[in-house]
Amino acid sequence: MRNLNQDTITQAVIARFAATPDPRLKEIMTSLVQHLHAFAREVKLTEEEWFKGIEFLTRVGHITDGKRQEFILLSDTLGLSMLTVAMNNDKPAGCTEATVFGPFHVEGAPHYEHGEDVANGATGQPCEVRGTVRGMGGEPVPGAVIEVWQADAEGKYDVQREGLKQHQARGVLKSGPQGEYRFKSILAEAYPIPDDGPVGDMLRATKRHPWRPAHLHFMIRAPGYETLITHVFRNGDKYLDSDAVFGVRESLVADWVEQPDGTWLVEYDFVLNPASSG
Amino acid sequence: MRNLNQDTITQAVIARFAATPDPRLKEIMTSLVQHLHAFAREVKLTEEEWFKGIEFLTRVGHITDGKRQEFILLSDTLGLSMLTVAMNNDKPAGCTEATVFGPFHVEGAPHYEHGEDVANGATGQPCEVRGTVRGMGGEPVPGAVIEVWQADAEGKYDVQREGLKQHQARGVLKSGPQGEYRFKSILAEAYPIPDDGPVGDMLRATKRHPWRPAHLHFMIRAPGYETLITHVFRNGDKYLDSDAVFGVRESLVADWVEQPDGTWLVEYDFVLNPASSG
Repeated sequence: MRNLNQDTITQAVIARFAATPDPRLKEIMTSLVQHLHAFAREVKLTEEEWFKGIEFLTRVGHITDGKRQEFILLSDTLGLSMLTVAMNNDKPAGCTEATVFGPFHVEGAPHYEHGEDVANGATGQPCEVRGTVRGMGGEPVPGAVIEVWQADAEGKYDVQREGLKQHQARGVLKSGPQGEYRFKSILAEAYPIPDDGPVGDMLRATKRHPWRPAHLHFMIRAPGYETLITHVFRNGDKYLDSDAVFGVRESLVADWVEQPDGTWLVEYDFVLNPASSG
Repeated sequence: MRNLNQDTITQAVIARFAATPDPRLKEIMTSLVQHLHAFAREVKLTEEEWFKGIEFLTRVGHITDGKRQEFILLSDTLGLSMLTVAMNNDKPAGCTEATVFGPFHVEGAPHYEHGEDVANGATGQPCEVRGTVRGMGGEPVPGAVIEVWQADAEGKYDVQREGLKQHQARGVLKSGPQGEYRFKSILAEAYPIPDDGPVGDMLRATKRHPWRPAHLHFMIRAPGYETLITHVFRNGDKYLDSDAVFGVRESLVADWVEQPDGTWLVEYDFVLNPASSG
């Protein structure tokens, strides 16, 4: 295996993975090498461009920490995240669709009772969120664990705020006996994804905007059902058709309605897919 | 641009790069998205596998610092580095071939005169290295700047040694009036690439060994000629046919000859390609 050239190296690299014990890992590495090499060959990548790529990924790695996940942002902005979600969540008609997880979920959010305010000091206009969690046949799903997280009025998630001690605008609730849920929070607003790092540089160099339409994140888990990771998007938002991370589904858009007292209300009913028996 | 699915998302992401002012960047991003998505689609990447990929890249980023470049190691072990070198160094017959740069070059290596010892305290059996730098027509290239770097007897480059104050086994020389060069160093030995990080985990999971055949690194610059980045490999090394980074060229293999006094000698003549006038 000497004297590999641009025509022979790809097969030589793939051959090096031949003894991989895990067949799935072998399949993934083989395909990865083929497509990575096909990319480099198609654009005739120069050595200078290769090095710029190395430098870019190094910056992505170095800005990533426990509170910021620039690799997820990169995957999101290249549409890889939404592609992966789409391939793995081909649910039957009538089920709530899935969308991207995003980089701002954290473990250990506080638990709240029905009707409580998850804002916990986050800035924003008061908003009530309510609806039901049901199964495909319309049956209520009581006791579903509902995690919700969202940005504040300035477009920041709590984890983006230096020195903040408590969780804000995120919480864990349980659906009631009829599958109902209800909590207070703040009005969802459009916000730019963090664009002070290498992903932001990529967006600027390609004249792409960093904005996401206003949304709430949900992760809903219940025994016997597939875990649902999704958003509810705010109708009327000007970024619904140009979400920086390609996550909008029409079926996930809901109306936030201003109430006579100046607060807001959004209602959304979730429908869970039964867990596959396979 | 709502309701993107696995069949429509790729074109939607590419369309988002349509306004990129730099046509080359637009070409690269378009091809990257196509091949990245083709990979995910071909293997039907699961969400769990996607997240493992994010975690892997995060580890690659976090172990990378001023002295360790795990992204280059990753590129090297996936054959991307050698592919890029091969595509960009299609030199005329008779020129010295190029190979991978590797992650261990550093700026600011000390300068040495003819015959001096670049080892500078590095462990290893004494070895003299000599030869000429010439052009395609056989003309000597005097004053060529020759950078050399190599691992020590334990397979470590100086930058891998915590707390080492001086450069070892690396230096900068100039060819003499007849293009000749000559320096002392230590015997090149096979060594494993750093495998205590995520790239090492990848190699173990795929039953690949981390070894590189013994070699010296050279970077040679002279006005009017293309910069040459290459190795000289030690004949007889058992890893010549299974280099972990796919860099071996038959034309770069030379004989290290043991001398009566127990020291070693290797001779190698470099032939530079004229700089393209384009």
